Amino acid sequence: MNKLEQQALDYHAAGQRGKIAIQVTKPVASQADLSLAYSPGVAVPCVEINKNPAKAYEYTAKGNLVGVITNGTAVLGLGDIGALAGKPVMEGKAVLFKKFAGIDAFDIEIDETDPDKLIDIIAALHPTFGGINLEDIKAPECFQIERTLRERLSIPVFHDDQHGTAIVVGTGFLNALHLTGRDISLVKVVCSGAGAAAIACLDMLVDLGVRRENVYVCDSRGVLTTERELTAEKRAWAQATDAKTLSDVIGMADVFLGLSGPGLLKQDDVKKMAARPIVFALANPEPELRPELIREVAPDAIIATGRSDYPNQINNALCFPYLFRAALDTGATTINQEMKRACVVALAEMARSDDQFGKQYIVPTLLDKRLLTGVTPQIAVAAQASGVARRQIDAAQYRAQLEALAQTLL
Amino acid sequence: MNKLEQQALDYHAAGQRGKIAIQVTKPVASQADLSLAYSPGVAVPCVEINKNPAKAYEYTAKGNLVGVITNGTAVLGLGDIGALAGKPVMEGKAVLFKKFAGIDAFDIEIDETDPDKLIDIIAALHPTFGGINLEDIKAPECFQIERTLRERLSIPVFHDDQHGTAIVVGTGFLNALHLTGRDISLVKVVCSGAGAAAIACLDMLVDLGVRRENVYVCDSRGVLTTERELTAEKRAWAQATDAKTLSDVIGMADVFLGLSGPGLLKQDDVKKMAARPIVFALANPEPELRPELIREVAPDAIIATGRSDYPNQINNALCFPYLFRAALDTGATTINQEMKRACVVALAEMARSDDQFGKQYIVPTLLDKRLLTGVTPQIAVAAQASGVARRQIDAAQYRAQLEALAQTLL
Repeated sequence: MNKLEQQALDYHAAGQRGKIAIQVTKPVASQADLSLAYSPGVAVPCVEINKNPAKAYEYTAKGNLVGVITNGTAVLGLGDIGALAGKPVMEGKAVLFKKFAGIDAFDIEIDETDPDKLIDIIAALHPTFGGINLEDIKAPECFQIERTLRERLSIPVFHDDQHGTAIVVGTGFLNALHLTGRDISLVKVVCSGAGAAAIACLDMLVDLGVRRENVYVCDSRGVLTTERELTAEKRAWAQATDAKTLSDVIGMADVFLGLSGPGLLKQDDVKKMAARPIVFALANPEPELRPELIREVAPDAIIATGRSDYPNQINNALCFPYLFRAALDTGATTINQEMKRACVVALAEMARSDDQFGKQYIVPTLLDKRLLTGVTPQIAVAAQASGVARRQIDAAQYRAQLEALAQTLL
Repeated sequence: MNKLEQQALDYHAAGQRGKIAIQVTKPVASQADLSLAYSPGVAVPCVEINKNPAKAYEYTAKGNLVGVITNGTAVLGLGDIGALAGKPVMEGKAVLFKKFAGIDAFDIEIDETDPDKLIDIIAALHPTFGGINLEDIKAPECFQIERTLRERLSIPVFHDDQHGTAIVVGTGFLNALHLTGRDISLVKVVCSGAGAAAIACLDMLVDLGVRRENVYVCDSRGVLTTERELTAEKRAWAQATDAKTLSDVIGMADVFLGLSGPGLLKQDDVKKMAARPIVFALANPEPELRPELIREVAPDAIIATGRSDYPNQINNALCFPYLFRAALDTGATTINQEMKRACVVALAEMARSDDQFGKQYIVPTLLDKRLLTGVTPQIAVAAQASGVARRQIDAAQYRAQLEALAQTLL
């Protein structure tokens, strides 16, 4: 075990084990307090909620509470390590929710791999939470699981591995096009990987203006073609082509999007790409090809990775705290495409407005203190404009509220 | 709405809504911290837990975490108001866990009334928690639900409405016998109510030495007799008798145990009881018969209620925080009868050792600061002696640890 690994274990084991705890937010010092917090006083909010379920948002923590839910079938790059072994990641996610957006998130690890049963379990938990963040559930099951839960529940359900990644990729992509002066309707994209995150990223790129016929996708068996037997999600990206491998399709590609594994992009591939190529090598922790090796053959490439030790880190934490913050604050029944797109655009504008903006700075950095106030209001506006908000909030007042919250967080 | 009711609503709605929040327990100020709390460092504890599941207790919050779980089918005295409307009670329970024993408890409200499905859902949540406190689930389903979960899971599962009540009733009962010099094997008990709590109390009294043939139980249709068609749980208490009503069986009873509803004990009934009767009128908030009315006809009665505004409050919070504290600290796989009995005895001894001990003080009071250190160690010893503890802990060291914890709580 190297020093960093030992440090990570020590960090988790030190003091109170794990990373989160429960905090009591109301006074409970006296018998009088207790008779309000618990019996007999507690019966009063129960009765009110029974009469009007919306009152749960007034008398309980539900309205600021997100469940971070996994079954542990696709944890980080570690694969199907099981629900229990995924717990440190879920607690870590709860930490990010709290730190970046003041959201109380609680991790739920579910020992169930059957998609239908998992759906029923998560659906039954809906009274507990104000929103559900699905995490580290493997493809292709994750598509059906998220889709069904979104249909069945009237609280936001968001599979971060899909859409969080897609949003931040969308942000970096828009800014890379901007820097290289490309027309989005003409760019050619080659994607390595056809898992949950890859498919969601491609959907987002198309939503932003990329043309589907300009996209080539490779999974572990090669290019997705109309000749192959494919899942429904992959079939949507199949091309009628004789090409077999990534190398066969990467010629003159403007964008490489890697959500696969180390070594799956070669320097020879990069050489075949268009001038000033855009290379998102997002395999984690080891990218498809290291940035320094990309630059050897394409010095003017715009490069992003999933790592914090290179510029342009594509990190979901740039979006999910603010998406849920806006969704909870507007009482949104869902996190829809309009809200996701608003988040992409707000993040992209925020990076562009920064003095550092350039090929080494196409997305904001994780600890940028402007994120909460700079991104959340636009998402809230999109929620309201698209008709999924249950509460209308005043923009100026909301910004002030977020400013105040930001002060307590940082 | 009266003033107290409005106060209860205001208490719940003020400031951060509800009563609990998530607290981050580790530093997350820098990029370096984040790389330990989340990717890439977080992968290290995940891998360790995948290799050895017991490590979850070292690297996550699991070992101090209890799920307070309901489906809302029997909330307080309000009945089947649904999972969502039960949330204020579950949050309140989490408050008590934290305040009295430093346990992080998180409330889970499950929208499922089918017992088998509910069992599957709760069972699947086992990786999340170190223990499960079932709450406000209606009888008779609660019996099967608890029994099955106890069999299926290797973490403690405890239905507080049954056993918490039984333990504190056991405590008051032992001390009332002590004060009146009664022989437990001879006392006659009449119980009004045959729900989950009543049955659990009766089981506990028999476990402590009451003879089953000396117990008469009435449900809403009258005395449980061998002539009636009854559920398995009730059948265990049926007597071969022609008696029909409570009044028919209460003659010369030493103990009245009420877990039913207001008005179900009459002054005439009390008059028929043995001298120095023991009357536990626990219907909440309105007892079977008010203490002042009991005393009118039996001035030397020993009386307990569920209310905080009379002496001798039978309150589950006298036991569940300490039972779970001991169970978590010893790594107990279950909360067994030995641990419950140890809790009864420790609580009874604590009351007896108090200067105030007497007919107005047969159980400790809720805010007694000696409870954590005075009760928990005996439960831990019972866990170890009965073979369900996964960790042996040194008694002196444990007491010191609890003393230190108590300082942080009060």
